[in-house]
Amino acid sequence: MRSPPSVYLAGPDVFLPGALAVGDLKKEICARYGLAGLFPFDNEAVATADGPPLERLIYRGNVAMMRAADAAVFNLSPFRGPSADAGTAFELGFMTALGKPCLGHTGCPSSYRDRVAAHMPLVLDRPTGRWLDPRDHAVEDFGQADNLMLTVSLSDGAPGAGILRGEAQDLSDMAGFEACVARLAEHFGTGPRR
Amino acid sequence: MRSPPSVYLAGPDVFLPGALAVGDLKKEICARYGLAGLFPFDNEAVATADGPPLERLIYRGNVAMMRAADAAVFNLSPFRGPSADAGTAFELGFMTALGKPCLGHTGCPSSYRDRVAAHMPLVLDRPTGRWLDPRDHAVEDFGQADNLMLTVSLSDGAPGAGILRGEAQDLSDMAGFEACVARLAEHFGTGPRR
Repeated sequence: MRSPPSVYLAGPDVFLPGALAVGDLKKEICARYGLAGLFPFDNEAVATADGPPLERLIYRGNVAMMRAADAAVFNLSPFRGPSADAGTAFELGFMTALGKPCLGHTGCPSSYRDRVAAHMPLVLDRPTGRWLDPRDHAVEDFGQADNLMLTVSLSDGAPGAGILRGEAQDLSDMAGFEACVARLAEHFGTGPRR
Repeated sequence: MRSPPSVYLAGPDVFLPGALAVGDLKKEICARYGLAGLFPFDNEAVATADGPPLERLIYRGNVAMMRAADAAVFNLSPFRGPSADAGTAFELGFMTALGKPCLGHTGCPSSYRDRVAAHMPLVLDRPTGRWLDPRDHAVEDFGQADNLMLTVSLSDGAPGAGILRGEAQDLSDMAGFEACVARLAEHFGTGPRR
């Protein structure tokens, strides 16, 4: 029997209390759809006195896992600011460059521009048509859920589902995640297991 | 004569007022070191009525530029939060996966943890040794300038210079950028032009 396609489970979930339990739940959901979830290495790495420092072990573990994975699902919910976690954004770029199928979801229904506008006053610069923040930095206004490099990467390749926007406002919400897994299962022609 | 190695110029510079002038300055600095700078497409793309939307044109333009580039320099200064711009993080992951030499700099000398701590109270969770923010999300505490996926990627491959930390606190500071270009020139055995 062929082993199930493997899915790298990217997101700031590694920073949640009970991160390993969140990882186990995601793996269970993957298994229900005939896929094998790979949870980032962050919470299991142990440094030794004469080995590389912990941050290097984690990095190398995650890179090896991404290279081994057949696909990835990204939790792109805003994390400590209006954008996705920077490490998750890095990993989305990494997997996109490798040409692996990427699915993404966010718990936040608003656009990037609206999220920034909720935190600081924006001014429309009429000559350029751009919205500027108080430092005169332009604010992306394409109606996208985040920086366009992240969102368009999810709609411009296969399976091209685009970022799935939820209403949960909760980093550990599983509805958007499961919707991504279901689409991946369709892409690979696996489960759901009945 | 061989054409000079090309360098993708990643960063939130595209959101600065006078972004094209910033790009031109960066290209000039590259040229002084025998390198050809490629500034992201964001500010020059024009959508047509029956073509793809602007955000897709920009995405495709930047991806094509990254694939064409021999290397990249990343402005990883914090942008609208404690981390680097999400699009820049995506691009660092993308170029890392392609195995191209990546250099990075930040105008901010502090660690990620200290930057988060300056904005919200952190509590040490003694059982795990992790610092937690008010939402109980763990805060990376490796002394790194940002999420470890970004910073370790810059020290774990070639040329492996690590992220260069400046004191400028200014997104458009050129000192860190030029230091990266100088290291790339050394890597490629080009300039500085005398």
